[in-house]
Amino acid sequence: MRNLLVDKKSGDDIKVKVRDLKFGGTEKIIISGPCSVENYDLMLKIAIELKKIGVQMLRGGAFKPRTSPYDFQGLQFEGLKILKAVSRETQMPVVTEIMDPRDVEMSMDFTDMIQVGSRNMYNYSLLKELGKVNVPILLKRGMSATLSEWLKAAEYIVSGGNENVVLCERGIRTFESYTRNTLDLNSVAAIKKKCRLPVIVDPSHGTGLRELVPNMSLASIAAGADGLIIESHISPENSLSDSRQTISIEALGNIISGVKKLEGIFYEDKA
Amino acid sequence: MRNLLVDKKSGDDIKVKVRDLKFGGTEKIIISGPCSVENYDLMLKIAIELKKIGVQMLRGGAFKPRTSPYDFQGLQFEGLKILKAVSRETQMPVVTEIMDPRDVEMSMDFTDMIQVGSRNMYNYSLLKELGKVNVPILLKRGMSATLSEWLKAAEYIVSGGNENVVLCERGIRTFESYTRNTLDLNSVAAIKKKCRLPVIVDPSHGTGLRELVPNMSLASIAAGADGLIIESHISPENSLSDSRQTISIEALGNIISGVKKLEGIFYEDKA
Amino acid sequence: MRNLLVDKKSGDDIKVKVRDLKFGGTEKIIISGPCSVENYDLMLKIAIELKKIGVQMLRGGAFKPRTSPYDFQGLQFEGLKILKAVSRETQMPVVTEIMDPRDVEMSMDFTDMIQVGSRNMYNYSLLKELGKVNVPILLKRGMSATLSEWLKAAEYIVSGGNENVVLCERGIRTFESYTRNTLDLNSVAAIKKKCRLPVIVDPSHGTGLRELVPNMSLASIAAGADGLIIESHISPENSLSDSRQTISIEALGNIISGVKKLEGIFYEDKA
Amino acid sequence: MRNLLVDKKSGDDIKVKVRDLKFGGTEKIIISGPCSVENYDLMLKIAIELKKIGVQMLRGGAFKPRTSPYDFQGLQFEGLKILKAVSRETQMPVVTEIMDPRDVEMSMDFTDMIQVGSRNMYNYSLLKELGKVNVPILLKRGMSATLSEWLKAAEYIVSGGNENVVLCERGIRTFESYTRNTLDLNSVAAIKKKCRLPVIVDPSHGTGLRELVPNMSLASIAAGADGLIIESHISPENSLSDSRQTISIEALGNIISGVKKLEGIFYEDKA
Repeated sequence: MRNLLVDKKSGDDIKVKVRDLKFGGTEKIIISGPCSVENYDLMLKIAIELKKIGVQMLRGGAFKPRTSPYDFQGLQFEGLKILKAVSRETQMPVVTEIMDPRDVEMSMDFTDMIQVGSRNMYNYSLLKELGKVNVPILLKRGMSATLSEWLKAAEYIVSGGNENVVLCERGIRTFESYTRNTLDLNSVAAIKKKCRLPVIVDPSHGTGLRELVPNMSLASIAAGADGLIIESHISPENSLSDSRQTISIEALGNIISGVKKLEGIFYEDKA
Repeated sequence: MRNLLVDKKSGDDIKVKVRDLKFGGTEKIIISGPCSVENYDLMLKIAIELKKIGVQMLRGGAFKPRTSPYDFQGLQFEGLKILKAVSRETQMPVVTEIMDPRDVEMSMDFTDMIQVGSRNMYNYSLLKELGKVNVPILLKRGMSATLSEWLKAAEYIVSGGNENVVLCERGIRTFESYTRNTLDLNSVAAIKKKCRLPVIVDPSHGTGLRELVPNMSLASIAAGADGLIIESHISPENSLSDSRQTISIEALGNIISGVKKLEGIFYEDKA
Repeated sequence: MRNLLVDKKSGDDIKVKVRDLKFGGTEKIIISGPCSVENYDLMLKIAIELKKIGVQMLRGGAFKPRTSPYDFQGLQFEGLKILKAVSRETQMPVVTEIMDPRDVEMSMDFTDMIQVGSRNMYNYSLLKELGKVNVPILLKRGMSATLSEWLKAAEYIVSGGNENVVLCERGIRTFESYTRNTLDLNSVAAIKKKCRLPVIVDPSHGTGLRELVPNMSLASIAAGADGLIIESHISPENSLSDSRQTISIEALGNIISGVKKLEGIFYEDKA
Repeated sequence: MRNLLVDKKSGDDIKVKVRDLKFGGTEKIIISGPCSVENYDLMLKIAIELKKIGVQMLRGGAFKPRTSPYDFQGLQFEGLKILKAVSRETQMPVVTEIMDPRDVEMSMDFTDMIQVGSRNMYNYSLLKELGKVNVPILLKRGMSATLSEWLKAAEYIVSGGNENVVLCERGIRTFESYTRNTLDLNSVAAIKKKCRLPVIVDPSHGTGLRELVPNMSLASIAAGADGLIIESHISPENSLSDSRQTISIEALGNIISGVKKLEGIFYEDKA
């Protein structure tokens, strides 16, 4: 079997830049924000709080892939505009999900990084489109994707000409129902051994339970992750979607301080 | 929770017509053909043989969703043209997979039914597009989709205005590795109890092993399926993809004769 | 890798006799009864009704493996005595579960067949003990056992000297939560191809939903199963355990009449 | 639903003592040794090396639960004697697996802690026996056990009168085949929130790949684990079983030094 471009054997590790941030370097990147973009004022308020505690990048859903057609589908383009405005105001880069290959071109005016959600990891039409553009991609693992399938999904983008791909482990679907998904940190350890791309972890979807997010954030970093993407809200109980897994700004602050300590250890290890 | 349009409680069972065929009636529909469309002569030859043994409808992949970007991706538009020509020649309706929402409009000139593959069951942009057109849809179950998610994917199409949806069970992803997937016939029995849409079964992908296809075809019909979609080839060992699960025309003939016997029993039951 | 004794290649198919019944012959064996033995009068009443509709063998749990130590653990020895008495009264053979290797010897005075439950398929101490005795064994598949592990569990018994093993598919644990388990009929088709032992199906545990039991019973027989084990009760709603999956005597009668029709087809096929 | 004795709400956290060691305190416990006990000289040699690098407790399999009856089943009683002798020589406590309820009494003369393996987590006859004795138990999670089932298995022992139970996460069975199992650290975080018992992690079985063991060991501790059980060998490539997941003494030394650093952080957090 031929090597993939994303295999360690095919070259040096790839660092993915998003404005001034670098995924895959010694600094761990913390992305946070609400599940859905709700309105400008709230988004700005959250962003300002997040910036204060050291969050480097904003997330917020504008196009929401929802299981039922009757569920809230996100603010769509209106949401993108809000994200863009808040990004300009706070000078924080943003990442948001795009689901339709027809929206890729347009979205580049609004976001610094395009997220491919778990449901679209096998959407090869979308992946091919993303291989043609020059924007960093956050590629979430499919909910039942093997490691091999996930890396080959990344290969669709990289072989198309865009090597700016950051992988994101977000939990897989198993028989366990206590947690929303089973966060598979084995995959993170494996990626650091065999793949050139950076990988971050989403402990919010990976657990579905806010009380497990702090421990699993630290575990992710210890497993080798290059960063975290965490759902947070000023008022977690009132967020429009996924409130059960959303944490407060204060809880996130504690996580960041734990991550900093782990960075210290890792840095020592490498020195 | 509101009822879905596809729930039994919301109305009579939906029969889906594809030319003269009717999914969801007393006759079981057998769809067959090779995994990929390879060339016109071979496709025609296979189609003629299939028609002789009682196959009512043709399948053949033109756009192939492949795990690796380096695998054969199908003949694409060339494949559609071949399917159309063979369909005209044999007077058999055809079904083929479309993956990109931008291809939906165009494909309607070439195919009688559009298949949504397992990897795209959660591709809501595609589903929404299919809700707007007037063409029958074959909606395969996602490889790790729950019954509830699958029915809601159908609801995306039906609520968009297109109620011509046939469900297709094709196996789910489990720990078992002896078979390619675990064919979940519980889902078929459940759909017949709670959903208005017809459901067929794909025992080729559902087992991945040609020697299991005959027994599982009969089991599917006994579980209540309205038809079968089976990969066959004049020369199974030489098919371009999925050869391990492709059966011969002769083996398919035996299956069809078994299905006819089961139809007899079922018809009696209902009389 | 050496062949197993249970592999087709190692000899003729094994027919397992339980008194006058023969598992693995042309006649399909129907085993039924309540989840738990509750008391003598009720057990006798159920047995008489079951015999009338053509059930050949009785089941009833005396030692119940329960997830919680605080759940009803069965009548234990008292239950065995009741089974024995009802068996004598109705002349029907019985099967019941034994969990402890220390109970094997004793249980042979009370039951015609010993069931190894799903939770004990990997209990090699128990399997070894059962290899030493001369009593037919019903070996249920572990809830997450691969086909290969299951056949090797049977091999523990057969290689110990007792080849009277009937396999029982009862569903595996997957992400799907609509049904209690995912009934894996692929395993039945595979066993008929590669293994010398008879195999039956338990659609009660395999679905967990009584409304799915009829269709899945027929599907099991069509997939090649040599029989069925089904939970039934005179008053399903009032059974002490598993009431949601227990069917009425009347529903069972309909299933048996469907099975007889399928036997007709299968018999013709073989003639 | 009644609270379980093992629930946080039912009382203070339980610290489990094995000789001078305390599971559930501030010190993380490292257990290590070969998969199987092979002979006295080798076991002693390994033990001495392990003690030097800070391992506090020895593991070694005497009774090995093997999928095939033809695989090496361990040295059995001979293995227990070797463990006992090495333990006396090195003053290190030992843990070993017992599978048969009839062996429990006898084994107490040879081991400081009894391990219930993954395959026997649902073996309620064994669990009940272990509830009656006064010896610490290491209860591994069943390979497809939900968190709830696992805690109830512990409850069988605790409600029987023996509250000295340490839980051990060792990976669950999923569709992912790159790793032997999917290590579910969510379960560790959840146990620390809701259960009174200590929990350790087995990254050897949890990954099946020695190159992933270091990262996953640190991740386990960061997730909240009270210790680790790791397969190691002087000559990993030559170990009689599980060699692919066995690490060298040197690699283990590095892990222990990483764990010490994490202890520093955790200690600070609590101070």
